[in-house]
Amino acid sequence: MRIVIPLFDQFTALDAVGPYDALKLLPGAEVVFAATNPGPIRNNRRSLALTADAALDDIDSCDVLVVPGGPGVDAHLAGGPLPDWIRRMHDGTRWTTSVCTGALLLGAAGLLRGRTATTHWRSAERLASFGATYSAQRVVADGKLLTGAGVSAGIDMALTLAAQLADRTTAEAIQLAIEYDPQPPFDAGSPAKASQAVRDRHASGLLTSTRPAAG
Amino acid sequence: MRIVIPLFDQFTALDAVGPYDALKLLPGAEVVFAATNPGPIRNNRRSLALTADAALDDIDSCDVLVVPGGPGVDAHLAGGPLPDWIRRMHDGTRWTTSVCTGALLLGAAGLLRGRTATTHWRSAERLASFGATYSAQRVVADGKLLTGAGVSAGIDMALTLAAQLADRTTAEAIQLAIEYDPQPPFDAGSPAKASQAVRDRHASGLLTSTRPAAG
Repeated sequence: MRIVIPLFDQFTALDAVGPYDALKLLPGAEVVFAATNPGPIRNNRRSLALTADAALDDIDSCDVLVVPGGPGVDAHLAGGPLPDWIRRMHDGTRWTTSVCTGALLLGAAGLLRGRTATTHWRSAERLASFGATYSAQRVVADGKLLTGAGVSAGIDMALTLAAQLADRTTAEAIQLAIEYDPQPPFDAGSPAKASQAVRDRHASGLLTSTRPAAG
Repeated sequence: MRIVIPLFDQFTALDAVGPYDALKLLPGAEVVFAATNPGPIRNNRRSLALTADAALDDIDSCDVLVVPGGPGVDAHLAGGPLPDWIRRMHDGTRWTTSVCTGALLLGAAGLLRGRTATTHWRSAERLASFGATYSAQRVVADGKLLTGAGVSAGIDMALTLAAQLADRTTAEAIQLAIEYDPQPPFDAGSPAKASQAVRDRHASGLLTSTRPAAG
């Protein structure tokens, strides 16, 4: 079973690595990071690079597609090689999945028209612009599309997916292996739960600034 | 504020990337991945490589040390350059932290004698062999040592740390930014919660096998 995670400049690492470290444990799974050009792919802060071992064009098909998000998705939303590749892969997948604003890439690939999906809470309106109905759920399944909410939701999405690809006992054994017994010290992980002061701090932009490409 | 995450062959990516994607959002934080030799560092499956941008020997000091775990820690537990470097860094840190079996590296560095700490549940006895008292908590603070349980616990550890390094509002804004409102589809993330069938599946080794280095 081949699982492909496409990377692109300014992706968000946790979107990709959360699902990776769960799905790599599925018996029989081969997980491949791929990008237009193989090699290290940087996030928006430039302080992290994950290696793409394969070129997108060298991958003819895959069983599962896991599309991460990040500030870099913006460069692909008007169309281009990445959404074109996603659409081609989708024709042959068993599951096409996304984490965070990776859902917008599914949208740019034309896969979300008339579908229900989720994404990072901040991008709900952008998701709707691709003809999707946004659902403020952690994980949303619609046919073979499985979308996760922002960043950390990729872990919940991957465990849901693992139960589909294998069985519930295997998925729970993966949860045990990654000791996913979350106990956040605070309860501010969604706009509905965060205080006004926290939402203001988030909106101030301090937390989301992109460092210069050369930084 | 300089935060350093040391990498080594056969580290576990989520141990490092969970904290990274939270701590990178701290205003004023510079997060650096480092290794004995800079360049791509592979996990035990060989299908993931994260780039170390700095050499351990080029780092004189840091404010925060975040030590990930993984199968590769075993090669360093009898001592050597990595635990030596950790001990040198610890002299000048504000916080010395670990995720998963990264705690064993803190132990190998001699930092855990008489201290209370946590690690992956499967390594509790090994932690005790370094003179530490194992606590089956998600995150354990003892002086300036902050240790997290297995793999995914790094996110909880990092949010706890963010509140110490900045303030609670900032930490909650980071939680909101990474939409950390966990909703695992199952409740098997600790040995106490997992069923016997799930523990048996985990213990069967299917989930933890290491692929050949050339694979």
